[in-house]
Amino acid sequence: MFAIIMAGGSGTRFWPASREHLPKQFLRITSGRTLFEETLDRMRPLMPDQNIYVVVNRAHEEITHRLVGRRQARILVEPVGRNTAACIGLAALHVPENQRDEPMVVLPSDHFIADTDQFVRSLSVAADLSRTGAIVLLGIPPTRPETGYGYIEVETGPGYAGVDTSRRMKQFVEKPDPETALSYLSTGRHLWNAGIFISNARTLLIEIERCMPALHDGLRELAKSIGQESYAAAVAEIYSGLESISIDYGIMEKTCAPIYVLPGNFGWSDIGSWQALYDLRRDQADTRGNLLPEGAVTLHAEGNLVFSDTRRLVALLGVQRLVIVDTPDALLVADLNRSQDVKKLTEILKEKGRRDIC
Amino acid sequence: MFAIIMAGGSGTRFWPASREHLPKQFLRITSGRTLFEETLDRMRPLMPDQNIYVVVNRAHEEITHRLVGRRQARILVEPVGRNTAACIGLAALHVPENQRDEPMVVLPSDHFIADTDQFVRSLSVAADLSRTGAIVLLGIPPTRPETGYGYIEVETGPGYAGVDTSRRMKQFVEKPDPETALSYLSTGRHLWNAGIFISNARTLLIEIERCMPALHDGLRELAKSIGQESYAAAVAEIYSGLESISIDYGIMEKTCAPIYVLPGNFGWSDIGSWQALYDLRRDQADTRGNLLPEGAVTLHAEGNLVFSDTRRLVALLGVQRLVIVDTPDALLVADLNRSQDVKKLTEILKEKGRRDIC
Repeated sequence: MFAIIMAGGSGTRFWPASREHLPKQFLRITSGRTLFEETLDRMRPLMPDQNIYVVVNRAHEEITHRLVGRRQARILVEPVGRNTAACIGLAALHVPENQRDEPMVVLPSDHFIADTDQFVRSLSVAADLSRTGAIVLLGIPPTRPETGYGYIEVETGPGYAGVDTSRRMKQFVEKPDPETALSYLSTGRHLWNAGIFISNARTLLIEIERCMPALHDGLRELAKSIGQESYAAAVAEIYSGLESISIDYGIMEKTCAPIYVLPGNFGWSDIGSWQALYDLRRDQADTRGNLLPEGAVTLHAEGNLVFSDTRRLVALLGVQRLVIVDTPDALLVADLNRSQDVKKLTEILKEKGRRDIC
Repeated sequence: MFAIIMAGGSGTRFWPASREHLPKQFLRITSGRTLFEETLDRMRPLMPDQNIYVVVNRAHEEITHRLVGRRQARILVEPVGRNTAACIGLAALHVPENQRDEPMVVLPSDHFIADTDQFVRSLSVAADLSRTGAIVLLGIPPTRPETGYGYIEVETGPGYAGVDTSRRMKQFVEKPDPETALSYLSTGRHLWNAGIFISNARTLLIEIERCMPALHDGLRELAKSIGQESYAAAVAEIYSGLESISIDYGIMEKTCAPIYVLPGNFGWSDIGSWQALYDLRRDQADTRGNLLPEGAVTLHAEGNLVFSDTRRLVALLGVQRLVIVDTPDALLVADLNRSQDVKKLTEILKEKGRRDIC
């Protein structure tokens, strides 16, 4: 098997821990390892390291090299982000011609998965399904009326290729309003779109050719220089001109190839906010529901999340449901329930000319 | 006139801004100057600098010298704190024999006074009163049912020595319960004890001799070496053995000398907590009631006090009535209404072996 780990994202939802130069995938927020390393680790049972393509932005090339370390994963650098279709096309091009029929997992680098064994089993089943020529999405059965995710609607009907739970995809559904989200909980036909799927390099390149001919032309130009000295120059010249569109819109919604969805229960979260992080680490909190760095002291404090990458002592007194993010040059104190608005703070900072701290 | 500025206190109520090595009087919390400097400045209209005696603990000698700078105030060092009676006795001893009948203001170094002109006027009137041989306390007419202060109860009756508002002291009253504090608001006979009074060195030394003979013996020993090379050694040897008692209990409650109280309205506060600081600086807050360091950003944040002695950016999101104290090695986030419990946090820290940060 092969994998494309998409690590080109740059978010500010975990500001001030995350910055433009240090997006979420490079944070140690769920364990002592970065989300990126955790993602890399999860592929270990499925493929050798050299079959893993990591696609990163040039700004994050150095940290990616440092985290990959001596492992053999290949790092592909985007000079600028051009959304997932271009990213996936770039990686697919690098798969040797004679291995392009092997299953290829495509997945983001900044998600959390609680149950790696179950995740690996789901990917194995999806990989088998994909050998029939289908693109197979992993869908997450919703456990709450989430309005922050996109959904995948599936057809009713029998399982596909011997897998009872697999379904044919009907359509992608945009982030719903609360009422609609609530109704999705009970249909059995709506799954969270985790952005994880399995196909193979050949299918992906063919689909790009069919559905996104302009992107395909660009990639074909690039392909000529792969393995050549001219490669870096070619990427620098061509990549920024590529069509910027997501694989969901660019291919999944247009292709006439079969697209299947396999529901997977492996404790998935995209950790979209400090609050989401608190929720998934809640079982590690102290008896008063506080998640604290070592040495912190509290008195009458409950349900707080403190994230620190300084060695400062943190003391809490009489406060509830706060997220406190302590970094060397910026401090955030926020209502945990409003942590999705952290992005707005960074916008205010940019307006104030403080892009340096975003 | 003379003054004794008592700067030997060591509090942790403003932790983590205040520390054992940096008590409240050395903080810049009400302006760009420390409370100690503000206190020194307030004496300027009343006496020349060389008539001011500053009594400090040995641990704070260096910072006191730095803050006094080129001014001629005299710094007297206590090797250990021995409460106010010993402190005042020590300073009184240093007043030249031929000036011991001059009025002498005794006051703490860590209080806030909003109206310096009015304060100076009150001290001038009190100084005149004291020339009759009385000890004159400044009492603060209570403006709220404060349970955190001691009170002075005065006799009813006419003014003393031509000052209509002056009254004879009846007794000191301990910190009252809420109901009692409420009743004090309307008696007209209960004033807050600000710990500020005027007498003169001779009277004070005589009263110490009468009421506290053991302390007087110790001071007499010390007096022999004032101006001698042996002075430092004598202080080191004798001071720690002196009786440790407050001037209120040691003299004011025992003496048969007349004690008078002069009410003074000059916007006094002992700034006993972060909340008290917030209250007295409230008029400087932004439109949402936040008191913030330069460059801070907020969104839906109201009524917060942020004190920072780092240059870090502080961002607040959706939080109310917090005090956030940002120092290089410790961060406090507390409910402003519970800030009187900050002391308990430092006790927890000491139990945890973190005296280094207290």
